Amino acid sequence: MKESKMTTVIVGTNRQGSMSEVVAKQFLREFEMAGGRGQLLALKDLPRDFAFADMFGNRSEEMQVIIDNYIVGAERLVFVIPEYNGGFPGVLKTFVDAVPQATWRDKKAAMIGVSSGPTGASRAMDQFTSVLHYVKVHVHYLKPKLSNISALVEGEFVTEKRAESLIKDLALEMVSF
Amino acid sequence: MKESKMTTVIVGTNRQGSMSEVVAKQFLREFEMAGGRGQLLALKDLPRDFAFADMFGNRSEEMQVIIDNYIVGAERLVFVIPEYNGGFPGVLKTFVDAVPQATWRDKKAAMIGVSSGPTGASRAMDQFTSVLHYVKVHVHYLKPKLSNISALVEGEFVTEKRAESLIKDLALEMVSF
Amino acid sequence: MKESKMTTVIVGTNRQGSMSEVVAKQFLREFEMAGGRGQLLALKDLPRDFAFADMFGNRSEEMQVIIDNYIVGAERLVFVIPEYNGGFPGVLKTFVDAVPQATWRDKKAAMIGVSSGPTGASRAMDQFTSVLHYVKVHVHYLKPKLSNISALVEGEFVTEKRAESLIKDLALEMVSF
Amino acid sequence: MKESKMTTVIVGTNRQGSMSEVVAKQFLREFEMAGGRGQLLALKDLPRDFAFADMFGNRSEEMQVIIDNYIVGAERLVFVIPEYNGGFPGVLKTFVDAVPQATWRDKKAAMIGVSSGPTGASRAMDQFTSVLHYVKVHVHYLKPKLSNISALVEGEFVTEKRAESLIKDLALEMVSF
Repeated sequence: MKESKMTTVIVGTNRQGSMSEVVAKQFLREFEMAGGRGQLLALKDLPRDFAFADMFGNRSEEMQVIIDNYIVGAERLVFVIPEYNGGFPGVLKTFVDAVPQATWRDKKAAMIGVSSGPTGASRAMDQFTSVLHYVKVHVHYLKPKLSNISALVEGEFVTEKRAESLIKDLALEMVSF
Repeated sequence: MKESKMTTVIVGTNRQGSMSEVVAKQFLREFEMAGGRGQLLALKDLPRDFAFADMFGNRSEEMQVIIDNYIVGAERLVFVIPEYNGGFPGVLKTFVDAVPQATWRDKKAAMIGVSSGPTGASRAMDQFTSVLHYVKVHVHYLKPKLSNISALVEGEFVTEKRAESLIKDLALEMVSF
Repeated sequence: MKESKMTTVIVGTNRQGSMSEVVAKQFLREFEMAGGRGQLLALKDLPRDFAFADMFGNRSEEMQVIIDNYIVGAERLVFVIPEYNGGFPGVLKTFVDAVPQATWRDKKAAMIGVSSGPTGASRAMDQFTSVLHYVKVHVHYLKPKLSNISALVEGEFVTEKRAESLIKDLALEMVSF
Repeated sequence: MKESKMTTVIVGTNRQGSMSEVVAKQFLREFEMAGGRGQLLALKDLPRDFAFADMFGNRSEEMQVIIDNYIVGAERLVFVIPEYNGGFPGVLKTFVDAVPQATWRDKKAAMIGVSSGPTGASRAMDQFTSVLHYVKVHVHYLKPKLSNISALVEGEFVTEKRAESLIKDLALEMVSF
């Protein structure tokens, strides 16, 4: 029996208790209900000095384990991306910069945008698409935009109907992407 | 006598011995020869854990001093931006994210793009323009693109004629921007 | 007495009866009340074949008059940009392509984004900023995003309070930009 | 026997005798040698007033035939995109705007960038990726950048070795995309 492919859902910020983490966990639940096999990586769990200690050819053991388990070991990636200052969080791009370029090659990715304001992080996702294409990652065209996020979430769940269904649709889509 | 305005030239990577630092220092020399008053901030000198310790309302003393001296204390900013993975370095965006948004407001900025390949970091500069406009910074339309950078530099100097003159032209322009 | 500078407000689509035209006219009224001198150019009034007849060194008399009056004769430009297919209207970029590059140089511009959906044309404005910077136009960082536009307009007026005030603030700003 | 899928190679400018057409024809030759089935659409063959006559719900017979044959009738699209004013040609975006949005859905696309200068139209391709993703087209991450194009072409052929091989690699890739 062929083991199903692993998908890593990445919380694209290192903020504690972020809305993006709520969204990521909801995606993961929907994805597993649809038959996918997934795991969560939150950037808040990266080494606090990784932007220095794991760049330019340096590598800590802690980061190596994270890269092996969550990137090398996954065929698909789903990035939950909040909008910070009109773009993606710097820490998310730093994570891409810290992983050897060839590691990303030919993986398949999707994104979900999260914003407190109205734009749903559309610019952040556009710019991150350029980055992922550069490192030779396939990017799905569906990029749900969850704007005014605090109105969509209750406790640990995305409860607003349209947002819920955008997440579910992407989960179904990613099972076979 | 009115003291002339301070300009901070920012090396947009935390790499040691970067080409971007060579370019930044050359800009600074030209800028001072043209009558400007400038100082250099290299992101390699940020606290190694600033992406965690200085985000989301937290602030270290070390970072506070840097922000006060180099951002609050400057009216103009010049960013030297290498292209990492088809965009700006993550650490540069993290620095923007780590500084209170209102601190940036109404400053005047320029950029110089640096790439080892042919594009001269044009995409990185476009995307960074979106970020700077978001935090209400004026951005000059001149964005010199220094492509194939290692062919333009000898030791501590940009010696290739066209690149040299692009840097000089921007320096002259920024004195009165 | 020095004559005040002319500002051209450009409706960035060739659609008849567009919401963008309503927004452009409201901006113009506010701008004139603030002491500015302005005129309106709607792309629907361009020659119907200008994308062929006025490109690549060709020039019709009709287009020459438009360029002279509305671009050469203006020091400031305000583009009202609806979002078409996740970007600016093709016809707006075609207009930029059809005008000699040097004509744009050193003008000062602003943008207002208009969308039927939630994003307020933020991506369209980002991408158009890249284009304007390329042709050496100064671009103001204020880029009001009017999302869900049909809820903001009654008849010939933008009546929703926040949108009204964003337009007014930009008008005041542009008088002295 | 299953008929192989049709691919339309689109010359993304309406300029007569463009370098982009040379590149498009070379791609088509390589694609057919690799076993693909292709056809060429040059935007110079669109109706001269299509930006007015075929927008906003209007449709000319001539344009309908083009859309049916070249877009509806194709499963894959390859866009050859020159850089005009730091972005894609306005006429290319206008073509996307003029075709009903649902027509594009779930097609598979690739791009080749062409520039007279050094950037290889990288920004134009990034921005066009945003547009294609918006209309739900899959976009391949390989986006060959042909910079300084006139040095790469002799007569009707791309003869420079690296450029030739980038085109060939993409042709092989697209046969099975």
